Amino acid sequence: MSVTDDLAGRFRTLWDEIAPIGRVAGSGGYLRYALGEHEVLLRAWFREQAARREMPVTEDGNGNLFAWWGEPDAGDAVLTGSHFDSVPHGGAYDGPLGIVSALLAVDELRAAGVAPVRPVAVAAFVEEEGARFGVPCLGSRLLTGVLDADRAAGLRDAAGVSFAEALGGRPTGARPELVGRFSAFVELHVEQGRALVELDAPVAVATAIWPHGRWRFDVTGEGNHAGTTRMADRRDPMLTYAFTVLAANKEARLRGAHATVGRVSVESNATNAIPSKVTGWLDARAAEPETLTGLVDAVQAKAVERARRDGTEVALTEESVTPLVAFDGGLGGRLAALLDAPVLSTGAGHDAGVLAGHLPTAMLFVRNPTGVSHSPAESATDADCAAGVTALARVLAELACH
Amino acid sequence: MSVTDDLAGRFRTLWDEIAPIGRVAGSGGYLRYALGEHEVLLRAWFREQAARREMPVTEDGNGNLFAWWGEPDAGDAVLTGSHFDSVPHGGAYDGPLGIVSALLAVDELRAAGVAPVRPVAVAAFVEEEGARFGVPCLGSRLLTGVLDADRAAGLRDAAGVSFAEALGGRPTGARPELVGRFSAFVELHVEQGRALVELDAPVAVATAIWPHGRWRFDVTGEGNHAGTTRMADRRDPMLTYAFTVLAANKEARLRGAHATVGRVSVESNATNAIPSKVTGWLDARAAEPETLTGLVDAVQAKAVERARRDGTEVALTEESVTPLVAFDGGLGGRLAALLDAPVLSTGAGHDAGVLAGHLPTAMLFVRNPTGVSHSPAESATDADCAAGVTALARVLAELACH
Repeated sequence: MSVTDDLAGRFRTLWDEIAPIGRVAGSGGYLRYALGEHEVLLRAWFREQAARREMPVTEDGNGNLFAWWGEPDAGDAVLTGSHFDSVPHGGAYDGPLGIVSALLAVDELRAAGVAPVRPVAVAAFVEEEGARFGVPCLGSRLLTGVLDADRAAGLRDAAGVSFAEALGGRPTGARPELVGRFSAFVELHVEQGRALVELDAPVAVATAIWPHGRWRFDVTGEGNHAGTTRMADRRDPMLTYAFTVLAANKEARLRGAHATVGRVSVESNATNAIPSKVTGWLDARAAEPETLTGLVDAVQAKAVERARRDGTEVALTEESVTPLVAFDGGLGGRLAALLDAPVLSTGAGHDAGVLAGHLPTAMLFVRNPTGVSHSPAESATDADCAAGVTALARVLAELACH
Repeated sequence: MSVTDDLAGRFRTLWDEIAPIGRVAGSGGYLRYALGEHEVLLRAWFREQAARREMPVTEDGNGNLFAWWGEPDAGDAVLTGSHFDSVPHGGAYDGPLGIVSALLAVDELRAAGVAPVRPVAVAAFVEEEGARFGVPCLGSRLLTGVLDADRAAGLRDAAGVSFAEALGGRPTGARPELVGRFSAFVELHVEQGRALVELDAPVAVATAIWPHGRWRFDVTGEGNHAGTTRMADRRDPMLTYAFTVLAANKEARLRGAHATVGRVSVESNATNAIPSKVTGWLDARAAEPETLTGLVDAVQAKAVERARRDGTEVALTEESVTPLVAFDGGLGGRLAALLDAPVLSTGAGHDAGVLAGHLPTAMLFVRNPTGVSHSPAESATDADCAAGVTALARVLAELACH
């Protein structure tokens, strides 16, 4: 067995420990909601793995965990890691791959007799997907002060539980002295497209994240009986919703941008009732900020025009917007040269996108044969995951060990 | 106080006993699901009201209750009543008004010293709306054998509970000897439109129910990441769904028919994920059967064409179809003459529509000022409800008391 095969085997062994947690029988998708039953098990597993490696774990008062190799207070620490939480029925790799790979990278360096000159911290960020409390990168936004602690405390999940209740207390919010202890952040992540398949490479360095955001559109009409209400008398918000979905798709295609309406909520959602209200969520992304603004403005204008025809009212609310993130060019270029890896940009948001506003940041992407993400079809081979661990170990050695 | 005011007051007193049951704080809508917590309370209230009136209650093995004024086995009985269950966040009157009015009509006749020559039965039918187990008029379809007992037994609610489990045993199914004991059915119901407002009359007699049905359309695509999947690579079922919603509306308007998509279910229903599957329910109704068939065929053809463009697949499944119901002309005409009331037809389904296939049937409609139905805005004045009781008492006197 070659050294690489051996690492792939070690990856598989560690990976299998968490594979069943939160997996849905049948679909194979995951329900790992932040601070929910399954993510709490993953956090306990993280603490146990850190303890086995004699890595002390700290918590930042916002739900983010850090396992330290080296002295936590030494400063100039190199941060890696990712998140455990998933979208509803998401894949296994989005998030956990970055944490498992970081633990194995520490093992690789230790086995090679390498010791850190500057501390290495492996992070498990809370609520990266925003699937439970509605704001993505919640943990990293709190840590960096991008999101106000009081606002975060009051965010509620579908069952009415607040983030503060789930966390067991009000979040601490910005921790500038902790952020100041990090000199760099490198997040490893499964690729969410097929660029590495086309490039025939297992690992890439990411240089930028597109500006992107979420807008909620609430369409209010008049609930009524589906059988007895004349078409001319209706104020049906489902029509305005449907038109807005198609308009978002068309406007995004015209601009080379991305627009998705993947979530909808209907009152009363009964077969024989015209809804009183339909709420949709628009996810929009583009390479340039002005393209994104133009796209959202065009969708809003079309929705308002259609609402006038339908006798409904539509209100667009910005829920979160992340500006263009250009990762630190010096670090990304240095890592690409170190690894001889291709460079990519991405339409996906990440905690790295939030931290990039505060410290030199880069990402490593591991090849995903299907290119599919946020779905059980998301995948990565053990061999490519091993290549990711090797790449991350080389990055940590470069940044922390000499 | 006039006699009419007095009856309106008695109506209000009895009505207020059930008004709080299943009412949602805030919206004022009702969650009265068949055999659920609140409907079970209403059934207990019905038994108590019958007991106070010395009306024995029988159950037909399918969840339908009958309170008898007169000897249950005498034959030639006159059936009235309606249902307690509501659509999600529905109004107070749709269903319960027919039961409360029937109890008060019995009181009115007794107070006037009228005694039945043929028995009167007040029914509380189970699951008329189909909001819990998906099949409307479930109780009357079982009683008449229109729906197979085994199929009904296996119907499941959103939580996975079967109808048999909710009922406490397998339903009995067809009861021809019980149906044969009824000589007529007259169901009083709040109007689900504004025809009586325009006619300036409190009560009408209904002569027909439009043919109508429910079709489920399942659109399957490919779940994927909203940020990273190029528009050209998408197979987004939400687009096909949205197009089908607009097509149904357009095709119905072209034909003078009714089409509604008021219910949708999305997998995974996450803001940052392209759905893997979107399911919509089409409710369609028309005055003529061939119009209804043409409408559904046209919607299906448009959905299939759009699915080809979206790279998705769409499957249309007929969930239930009720043919044109012309109520017994002799009975309807007789009651309209008796009451000097206008006659109407309706796009709404009712237990009366099911029973009309087995015995002479008519309906009485009580004016609804808003014309709104299946919504908390549904209403009726106490004076009009009293007029409904008076009309129903006259009908029962005519059919059962001489």
